[in-house]
Amino acid sequence: MSASLRVGLCQLLVGRNKTQNVEKAATMIREAAQKGAQLVVLPECFNCPYGTKYFKEYAEVAAPGSPTFDAMSAAARDNKVWLVAGSFPEIDSQSRLFNSSVTFNPAGTAVNVHRKVHLFKINTETVKFDESEVLTAGNTANAVTISESGLKMGVGICFDIRYPQMAMQYSLQGTSLLVYPGAFNMVTGPVHWQLTAQARAVDTQQFVLLCSPARDEAADYVAWGHSLVVDPWGTVVASLNEAEGVLCADLDLSLIEKTRARLPIISGTRWSDAYSQSWAKSE
Amino acid sequence: MSASLRVGLCQLLVGRNKTQNVEKAATMIREAAQKGAQLVVLPECFNCPYGTKYFKEYAEVAAPGSPTFDAMSAAARDNKVWLVAGSFPEIDSQSRLFNSSVTFNPAGTAVNVHRKVHLFKINTETVKFDESEVLTAGNTANAVTISESGLKMGVGICFDIRYPQMAMQYSLQGTSLLVYPGAFNMVTGPVHWQLTAQARAVDTQQFVLLCSPARDEAADYVAWGHSLVVDPWGTVVASLNEAEGVLCADLDLSLIEKTRARLPIISGTRWSDAYSQSWAKSE
Repeated sequence: MSASLRVGLCQLLVGRNKTQNVEKAATMIREAAQKGAQLVVLPECFNCPYGTKYFKEYAEVAAPGSPTFDAMSAAARDNKVWLVAGSFPEIDSQSRLFNSSVTFNPAGTAVNVHRKVHLFKINTETVKFDESEVLTAGNTANAVTISESGLKMGVGICFDIRYPQMAMQYSLQGTSLLVYPGAFNMVTGPVHWQLTAQARAVDTQQFVLLCSPARDEAADYVAWGHSLVVDPWGTVVASLNEAEGVLCADLDLSLIEKTRARLPIISGTRWSDAYSQSWAKSE
Repeated sequence: MSASLRVGLCQLLVGRNKTQNVEKAATMIREAAQKGAQLVVLPECFNCPYGTKYFKEYAEVAAPGSPTFDAMSAAARDNKVWLVAGSFPEIDSQSRLFNSSVTFNPAGTAVNVHRKVHLFKINTETVKFDESEVLTAGNTANAVTISESGLKMGVGICFDIRYPQMAMQYSLQGTSLLVYPGAFNMVTGPVHWQLTAQARAVDTQQFVLLCSPARDEAADYVAWGHSLVVDPWGTVVASLNEAEGVLCADLDLSLIEKTRARLPIISGTRWSDAYSQSWAKSE
């Protein structure tokens, strides 16, 4: 990949029919690839309505032989793209459920599974949700190398974006972009969706991509939509509204070094020379 | 202090005359106190034009006997307020220079000196600056208890706000508000000033106060102004434009617990159970 990377975010309207959701995802991946996207991103829970009562029914093993996994592997291979396959409910050999994002390379091989580390919980007047009722949290945040040139990406899922420490962990691994499939809602979306995307971009001086499901006012959980791409200076370079659609954008990767030279936040980072309190609470 | 705290931010127009700057600071502190402020904040470099060439000339020891220190001690005592005395260039016994913020209690006693940990550096077409040419960086971030009820505050200076790890260090110490005297400029101000304030507030679910000098278009370094107060949900509850003025706001401290109950970011924090990479780079 050159100093530019074209990305495609598929803001998919997720319904009750899993097969149709997966087929639509494949269609949108093809559309993004036809528009030249080299890296395609799906939203959180792209094969399943977002709701704890649905997760077990829609869950699959994150491995070959599972319909969603196989379809996404084929979509990456057929379209020769890197694919951050949003997330789907994953079930493991111990019957534990995770909210997991599989990344496929252009050969269709799964190169990373990110299990949501920070489970979502909200308790407002209009929106209540607690993933921990049914889900188990992941415990890793490993960057993925997505090109021969060594370009690295960090994947988080939705609530993960609220934790600067995860973005910092990726940044320390040398990432150039952070990709968050996510589904904010009508309470947090208007105030925090773009803000947290810009915050993580400016903090770590790299690109941030957020990919949401399209808004379905009839759903139990109404997603905010507004998938977007933010550059290392914090500028929103592309965004959607709430409707279904594919958003493509060219990431000028040279902006990372330029931004870090203009405003040396990363090179000015202080560690144990300044902070007496360890970040690791229970080491 | 009750569950409400009235704060006053003094957005002072700093000039070349140190005595006049300090006198104006005292006047504005009195104005804030008359408006009921219990905690008053001054801007970064309130006794000195912001510029590396000025720091040595304007520097003082951060201890009784220094004119700026004594005047601020008297202002806190006379007005019976907690005072985060913005910052001024501090010189220590080894002739090292720091950008330092002294906090005084209502008895006029200095209870904390925060030496800017992250020295500011910028290299754009229109704004160039490198504090490290003349300043030494601080290496502590210790919360200050500002009431008998145990209310805690963390103080950072300007570029310090760009580092979530400092805000997290304060948050781990149990702070309810983060106070940043700062002087962003005409390049970073429009894009990053409010954004970073909101980011730190939302990340740590507490109040954030930013106090800037007023804008002086004739200065070597033109400050953005726009002092503001952000609540734990990220809402800007009060703000100024670029002109000189005192901004008062009531912090409803119950919002901290309410916000953390609505959206449990803090209690959902993961540490060494999730992150293989230590935050302390060189322990």
